[in-house]
Amino acid sequence: MKIAVAQLNYHIGHFEKNLNQIIEAIDQAKASNADLILFGELATCGYPPRDFLEFNDFIEKSNESLDIIRQHADDIAVVVGAPTINPVPEGKDLFNSAYFFYQKTLQHVQHKALLPTYDVFDEYRYFEPGSDFQTVSFKGKQIALTICEDIWNIDNTNPLYTFSPLDQYEAGSFDLILNLSASPFAQEHTEERRQIVQANAARYNTPVFYANHVGAQTELIFDGGSLVANSSGVIVDEQTFFEPSMAFYEWNDIETQTASNVNPIDEMELIRQALVTGIRDYFAKLGLKQAILGLSGGIDSALVTALATQALGKENVLAVLMPSEYSSDHSISDSLELVNNLGINHQIIPITPVYHALLEQLKPSFGNLPFSIAEENLQSRSRGVLLMGISNKLGHILLNTSNKSELAVGYGTLYGDMCGGLSVIGDLYKTEVFDLCRHLNKSGHVIPENIITKPPSAELRPDQKDSDSLPDYEILDTILKEYIENRKGPEEIIQLGYDATLVQRILGLVNRNEFKRYQTAPVLRVSSKAFGMGRRLPIVAKYLN
Amino acid sequence: MKIAVAQLNYHIGHFEKNLNQIIEAIDQAKASNADLILFGELATCGYPPRDFLEFNDFIEKSNESLDIIRQHADDIAVVVGAPTINPVPEGKDLFNSAYFFYQKTLQHVQHKALLPTYDVFDEYRYFEPGSDFQTVSFKGKQIALTICEDIWNIDNTNPLYTFSPLDQYEAGSFDLILNLSASPFAQEHTEERRQIVQANAARYNTPVFYANHVGAQTELIFDGGSLVANSSGVIVDEQTFFEPSMAFYEWNDIETQTASNVNPIDEMELIRQALVTGIRDYFAKLGLKQAILGLSGGIDSALVTALATQALGKENVLAVLMPSEYSSDHSISDSLELVNNLGINHQIIPITPVYHALLEQLKPSFGNLPFSIAEENLQSRSRGVLLMGISNKLGHILLNTSNKSELAVGYGTLYGDMCGGLSVIGDLYKTEVFDLCRHLNKSGHVIPENIITKPPSAELRPDQKDSDSLPDYEILDTILKEYIENRKGPEEIIQLGYDATLVQRILGLVNRNEFKRYQTAPVLRVSSKAFGMGRRLPIVAKYLN
Repeated sequence: MKIAVAQLNYHIGHFEKNLNQIIEAIDQAKASNADLILFGELATCGYPPRDFLEFNDFIEKSNESLDIIRQHADDIAVVVGAPTINPVPEGKDLFNSAYFFYQKTLQHVQHKALLPTYDVFDEYRYFEPGSDFQTVSFKGKQIALTICEDIWNIDNTNPLYTFSPLDQYEAGSFDLILNLSASPFAQEHTEERRQIVQANAARYNTPVFYANHVGAQTELIFDGGSLVANSSGVIVDEQTFFEPSMAFYEWNDIETQTASNVNPIDEMELIRQALVTGIRDYFAKLGLKQAILGLSGGIDSALVTALATQALGKENVLAVLMPSEYSSDHSISDSLELVNNLGINHQIIPITPVYHALLEQLKPSFGNLPFSIAEENLQSRSRGVLLMGISNKLGHILLNTSNKSELAVGYGTLYGDMCGGLSVIGDLYKTEVFDLCRHLNKSGHVIPENIITKPPSAELRPDQKDSDSLPDYEILDTILKEYIENRKGPEEIIQLGYDATLVQRILGLVNRNEFKRYQTAPVLRVSSKAFGMGRRLPIVAKYLN
Repeated sequence: MKIAVAQLNYHIGHFEKNLNQIIEAIDQAKASNADLILFGELATCGYPPRDFLEFNDFIEKSNESLDIIRQHADDIAVVVGAPTINPVPEGKDLFNSAYFFYQKTLQHVQHKALLPTYDVFDEYRYFEPGSDFQTVSFKGKQIALTICEDIWNIDNTNPLYTFSPLDQYEAGSFDLILNLSASPFAQEHTEERRQIVQANAARYNTPVFYANHVGAQTELIFDGGSLVANSSGVIVDEQTFFEPSMAFYEWNDIETQTASNVNPIDEMELIRQALVTGIRDYFAKLGLKQAILGLSGGIDSALVTALATQALGKENVLAVLMPSEYSSDHSISDSLELVNNLGINHQIIPITPVYHALLEQLKPSFGNLPFSIAEENLQSRSRGVLLMGISNKLGHILLNTSNKSELAVGYGTLYGDMCGGLSVIGDLYKTEVFDLCRHLNKSGHVIPENIITKPPSAELRPDQKDSDSLPDYEILDTILKEYIENRKGPEEIIQLGYDATLVQRILGLVNRNEFKRYQTAPVLRVSSKAFGMGRRLPIVAKYLN
C-alpha cells in the first residue's frame, strides 16, 4: 500500500483555496498511484477557525468542500479533517472530525476525543469530544483515525485527560494509525512531536502517519515536519519544516527501514524560519506586500528589519530613521550600515519639529512640571504617528519591534513604539534577540556589530540606558521565564537564588503592565507561552502587584 | 432557619480584601443570628481569575483564605466558592468548588459540574467537571450545593450539556438548593436569571438561594440581583443591582410568601448603571482616580464624559477640546455646553500646529499624493498623542469613546480615537448611544440637544458626514446585530430583506477590521456578545471579505 502525506499551507476561511490545494494534492497522489492520501486537521476551513465555527454558513461551506473532495476520492482513499455538526441536541454543536472517503463514498467519520483547551487552544469552546471509536477497513487493513491531541495521552500519562483514545480499541484491532494534526511551532516542540509519534508506533506496534499544517495563521506558525514511524518505532521520515510538501511511502518499504531519517535541528535557525514564515504569511494571507518599520539603531528594530527583508524581499521593506535631540550619532550611522547591508530603502525624518509642536501645545497642561515619562512617550508617539502616516499613505504595513522582555515589564510606549500590525519578536526575550542576531550574522554580515555590542538604550532622555531602570537582561530574562513559561510564583523563584526585592518588583511590573499587552499587536509565537491569545490574564487584578 | 445571602464586590487576586469582606459579612450574619451565610463563586480569589489559576502560589493563597474562613464558621455555616486542587493526576488540575464550613470544620466540598466554555467563559481551560454529587446535612435539612451554570440545564434543555447536576440526586433527597454564582450583566440576562431560579425551585419543589457578585472586573460587570425563590417557585426577593448588599431570610417566612418581590427593570437604566459601575471599578481596582477624554462635540464622547462624571465625580473628569481646521463651530460650542452642564474641567488645545508639523515632516514621503485617509488619521492621532501626553504627565487615565458600530466596521483610527485604557461604550451600537443619551436627559439637561440631533461626523475633512461612507445607523446596526449577536450568515441576513451588496460589504468590513479590534482597549460588556474576550476571531482569515 502506498500512502501520500500532504503537508499544506491552509488559509482560515478560504474554502476555495484550501479545496483547490486539496484537490491538486489528490490528483498528484493519483498520478503517483497512491492508495491513500492523508491531510491535516480541519483542512477544509484552516486552523484555528475560532468563532467562525459558530456560524452555520461557515460549516455549510466546509460541508460543500467535503462533498467535492468525496467526488475526487474515487480509486484513492482521502482522509481529511473538517468540522461535523453534532446530530443530537445535547453537548456542543460540533465535532472536530477525520473524514475517510473512498470510491466516492464516505466510509467513516472519526471525531477527535481529546480536545486541547489550554494555552492558545480553545477546542472545547466549540467541539463535543468524540466517544465512539471504530476502525476503517481498507484494502485488507484496519486503520485507526486520530486527530492531533488524540495521540498525546499515550499510556494515559498526560494529566489533562482521563483516557487514551487508541486504548479504546481492542488490542491489535488496527494495523495502521493515521493522525491529522494542526500542531503549531514552539521551541522544543519538534523533538516532543517525534517522541510522541515514535512512542505511539512502538506502543501499538503499528506504523503511524502524521500530517501537519505549514504556514502561519496570524500568531500561530505551523512548522510541518510531518512524520512517518514504522511499527518498530523508527521515525522513517520527517517532511521539511515550514514549507508545503508531499511525500509518498510504500508500507513494505517503511517497515524494513531501521535508521531514523529526520531533519537536523538548529533551534535558532528554526526560530528564524518560524518568524520569516510568520511575517510572510501575515502579508500573503492579508493580500499585503510591503512593510515599514522604524530603525532606532537598536538591536530589536535591526533584527525585525533583517527578518522582514528575508520574508518579503528587500524591495518591499522601507526603513524610517527618526532621530531626535536625544539620539546618539551611532543611532543613524548604525542604522544606515544595516540599511546598506540589507539593500533596502530608507527615509530619514527628524521628529524634533513634531515633538516641539506637541510640547508647545501641551505647555498650558504641563506647566512647570519636570521632564518625565510624558516627554519620553511624546517622542516615541511622534515616531508612531509618522510611521502610521506613511503606512496609511503608501499602504505599507508597520511591523512592531518590541521584544518579550520589554513587553513583560512594560518598557515600551503604548501607541508609540508599541504600534504595528504584527509583533515579530514579541516572543523573544532580549537575550534571545541577541542570540538570533548572532545566528543571522553566521550567514553573512547582516546586523552591524556595533548594534549588537552597544548598551541597549531607548534614547528618550540624555544618556539613558536600559540598565538605568532594569536589571541585566540575563537576570531579568531568567526571572521572567520562570514566571511566564514555568509559572513559578515569587517564593519559588526567590528559592532559585534571586533577590527577593528584585523578583517581587519584576513580577509586579509584569502584572501591572497587562493593560499595555492587551492592546499589543498579535505576537508571532515561538515559545510554549507567548503573550496574546495563549496567556489570558485580568487587567484589574491585584495579585503580586 | 435563618439564611444570609452576601452579594459582594470581589477583586481578582486581592485575597486580603476579599477575605476581609467575607469575614466582615460572617460577623454581621452572626450578629443577626443567621444559621448560614452564602457567598458567591470563587469568592476567595474573585472571578474570573483566568490564567492566575495556573499558579500554585495563587491557589495556595486561596487555600490560606479558606482556612481562615473555616475558623470563623463556628456557630454559623459558611458556604463559599474557591478553587480546589484535583487530587488525582488525571484531568484538569483544579475544580471550581463550593465549600461548606460549620463548627470550624469542612463539612463538604461540591465541585461545579457544568463548566461554561463559550463567549467570555473559559472554565474548561482550568477546571475538571465535578461528577460526584452529595448533599450536606445541616440542622435536619439536606442541602444541595450548586455553582452558577449547574442550575442552567434544567430538564436538560441547555444544548451545551448532557445532564443536569440536580437530577443526579435521588428525587426528593434535598430540601434546599444553594447556588454560588458569578454571573455577569448583559441586556436581557436579568429576566433569564429570575426564570432559571424560579424554574429550579418549582422543578425540585425546594427553595433556591442564589448569591451573585457585584462590581466590575475590567470588562465584565457583575450586577448582583441575588435571588431567593420559595418551593412554590415564587421569587421571594431580589437584592439590589450593582451594589454590595446582604439580606437575611427566615425559611418559614419565605415559604409562605405568595407575591414576587423583584426590582423594576428599565433596560437603559440598567445599562447606565452597568457602565457607571464598569468605569468606577476600573479606576477603584487599579487605584486610579482621574479620567481624561477628548470631547469632539459628537455624541459618543459626550455620553462617555457624562457617564465618567457620574462614576468618578465632576472633579475627577478632565475634558479636552482639540479643534482642527476641519472642526465645525458647534464642535466647540456644544462641547462647552456639555462641560458646563456637567461642571467638569476642560482644556482647549488646537491640533493644527501638531498636524502641520507632521505634514511638513512627511512631505518627502507623501509627495504630491492627494489628501486621503492618511491625513484624516494624522489629525485623529495628533489628538491621541496630546491626550496621552496629559495622561502621562498628570496621571489621568484616558477613556476610549468608540461605539460598537464603528468598532465593527473599522470606522476609527488605531492609535488615534481608538486610544484609551477602557472602552466605555464599545458594546453599544450607535443607535443605542442615542437611546442612552435620551435616557440620561430624562433626569436633567445633561447632553445638549444639538449633540443628539446633529448628523454624526468625524470632521476630519471638509463637510464630512458618517453617512457619506456608511448606511443609516438604523440599518447598519440591525445588520451588525444579526451578524454579531445572532451569528447569522450573509444569506440569512439578506433573506431578512436587506440589500445583498450592502450586507456583503458590511460583513466584509467587520471581518477585515478584526486587526483594529485586536488592539482596542477592553470593552465594558453589556450585551450577549461584546467585542473582546468573548468574541475570538482570526485576523488573517479570508472569510466573507
